[in-house]
Amino acid sequence: MIRIAFQGATGAYSESAARRLWPSGETVARDRFDDVFDAVKAGDVTHGILPIENSVGGSIHRNYGLLLEHDLPIVGETELTVVHNLLALPGTSITGIRRVFSHPQALAQCEQYVRTLPGVEVVATYDTAGSARLIREGGLRDTAAIASARAAEIFGLDILKAGIQDFQDTITRFIVIARDPVPLGPPDKTTLAFALQNAPGALFKALSVFALRDIDLTKLESRPARGLPWEYLFYVDVAVGRDDLRCTRALEHLAEFARWVRVFGSYRQWKVDGASPAMLS
Amino acid sequence: MIRIAFQGATGAYSESAARRLWPSGETVARDRFDDVFDAVKAGDVTHGILPIENSVGGSIHRNYGLLLEHDLPIVGETELTVVHNLLALPGTSITGIRRVFSHPQALAQCEQYVRTLPGVEVVATYDTAGSARLIREGGLRDTAAIASARAAEIFGLDILKAGIQDFQDTITRFIVIARDPVPLGPPDKTTLAFALQNAPGALFKALSVFALRDIDLTKLESRPARGLPWEYLFYVDVAVGRDDLRCTRALEHLAEFARWVRVFGSYRQWKVDGASPAMLS
Repeated sequence: MIRIAFQGATGAYSESAARRLWPSGETVARDRFDDVFDAVKAGDVTHGILPIENSVGGSIHRNYGLLLEHDLPIVGETELTVVHNLLALPGTSITGIRRVFSHPQALAQCEQYVRTLPGVEVVATYDTAGSARLIREGGLRDTAAIASARAAEIFGLDILKAGIQDFQDTITRFIVIARDPVPLGPPDKTTLAFALQNAPGALFKALSVFALRDIDLTKLESRPARGLPWEYLFYVDVAVGRDDLRCTRALEHLAEFARWVRVFGSYRQWKVDGASPAMLS
Repeated sequence: MIRIAFQGATGAYSESAARRLWPSGETVARDRFDDVFDAVKAGDVTHGILPIENSVGGSIHRNYGLLLEHDLPIVGETELTVVHNLLALPGTSITGIRRVFSHPQALAQCEQYVRTLPGVEVVATYDTAGSARLIREGGLRDTAAIASARAAEIFGLDILKAGIQDFQDTITRFIVIARDPVPLGPPDKTTLAFALQNAPGALFKALSVFALRDIDLTKLESRPARGLPWEYLFYVDVAVGRDDLRCTRALEHLAEFARWVRVFGSYRQWKVDGASPAMLS
C-alpha cells in the first residue's frame, strides 16, 4: 500500500506530482517540508514527495538543506508543468476581487498578471490549494486564490482565468524520498553533494572524475558554504546509476580530494514522452 | 553626480547596498526590476543596483533574465548581510499583531519566526520598506512589517524584534549596472553566460578553457534552457578582468564550440574586510 506525504493541502501541485507516479496511491497532506521528512522517517507513509527545482525559480535550496540534515534517500523523480489559475467562488467576477491568496512562490510566478488587478491586496499563505479552501470555507466573495485547476474542482471554485503564470513553460521537478533506498525503477541517475577546499583547479579536478569516465552531468550548481568561508558546496546530478562501476570509481576518486561527498540517492530518471531529458555532460 | 536606481521604496535593502558603494549618492526608488533597467537605459540615473544572489535563496533568476534581455553592462558589485526586523508603530506589542506585511522573499526568509506568531495573517507586498511606510501612513496599530532597521528609522516605527531571519548569516550580493562599461574600480572579475549544445564532455571542455589558463571560477550554475530542449545555459563568474590576456584567450577558446557566449561585464570584486572572497577555481 503506497502512501505519499506532500507539503500543502489537498489539490496542491505536489499532490498532482505524486499522482503522476501513483495514480491510485494514497496522498497525505503535511504543513511543512520538514513534516514530510518526519512522516517518512516515522514510517507514517511509504514515500514523501518534494519540489526540488523550478525552471523559473531555480533550485529549492530549503529541500537540499533538509536532504543534508536527514538521512533519507531519493528513490525517484517526476516533473510537472505548472499552470496557475485565478480561482474564485461562482458569481465572483475579476472586477469584484479585492484580495488574492496564494503561496509566496506562486505569487512571484504570477507577478506580472497580479499587477494588472488594480487595488488588490496580495495575501501570502502556506499553500496554493489551502488558499482555495480558505475561500470556500469562509465564503469569501471578494477574494481569489492562485492554485491548480484540481484545487478549483475540489473546492468548487470557478476558474476566472487560466494559465496566469508569467512564463508559460514553467516546469517543477519533484523528488521522491523513502526510508529505504529502494528505487522506483532501475536507477540511471544519481544525485550527490560535495564540498571542495579552495585550491586552484579544484572544481575542474572534481568534474574530471566524471568526464574522464564518460559520465554525463544533468545538473551542476555551486553554493558558497557561508558558515565555512573557504569552502564551496556543489549539487550535482549524474546520468548513471550508483552501482554502475564507472560511478563507484568516480565517487571513490572524488573522495580522494573532496572535503566530503554525500550521495542523496540513485534512481530512475523521469522520461518525458519516452525521450530522455537533455544532458549537460 | 551619482544617481542610483533601485527596486523598492526608500529604506529598502537595495538602497542600503547602494549606500555602501556611494555614501552620498542620490538614490532613486523604482517599482520593479524592469524599471531599474529602463531608468539606466533612459539616462534618468547613472547606475542601477540589483540583487543577483542570496546565500539562502540562491540566484535571482529574474535579474539574470533581464541582463540577457537588455544590453547594460555590470560595472560593480557589493554584498550586504540581511538583517530582517519586526517593525510596528510605537505602542504596538507582539501579542497585538494581527497582520504581517512584507515582500514574499523576506517572508520566506523569516518563515520559522512568522509561524510562531499565532493567528497572524501574512500579507505579501512589493517591497519590505514599502510595508513599513504602509503601516505609518495608514496608522495600522494591529500590523507589523518585516524590513530593515533603516526602514524603522525612516518611518518612525519601533523594532519589536531584531534579526528574525531563519538563517543568521544571510548575505545578498548586488550588482551595479550602467549604460557605459566603465567599471567602478580596476576589474578583477568577469560575469558571463554561455550555452552549450548537448554533447559528451561539453561542460568539462568549457571549464577547461579557464582551468588550463589558471583562471579561478567564483560561481557556476547550470540552467536548462526550457524553450530549447537540447541546450543548457551557464552562469559563470571568473576571477579575472576581461582585458587580461588569459581571459581574452579563454573567451575566444570558449566561442569556438559554445552555441553563444555573452559577457555581462567586467568589474572590481567586492572585498570584505580587505580579504578577497573564497574562490572555487
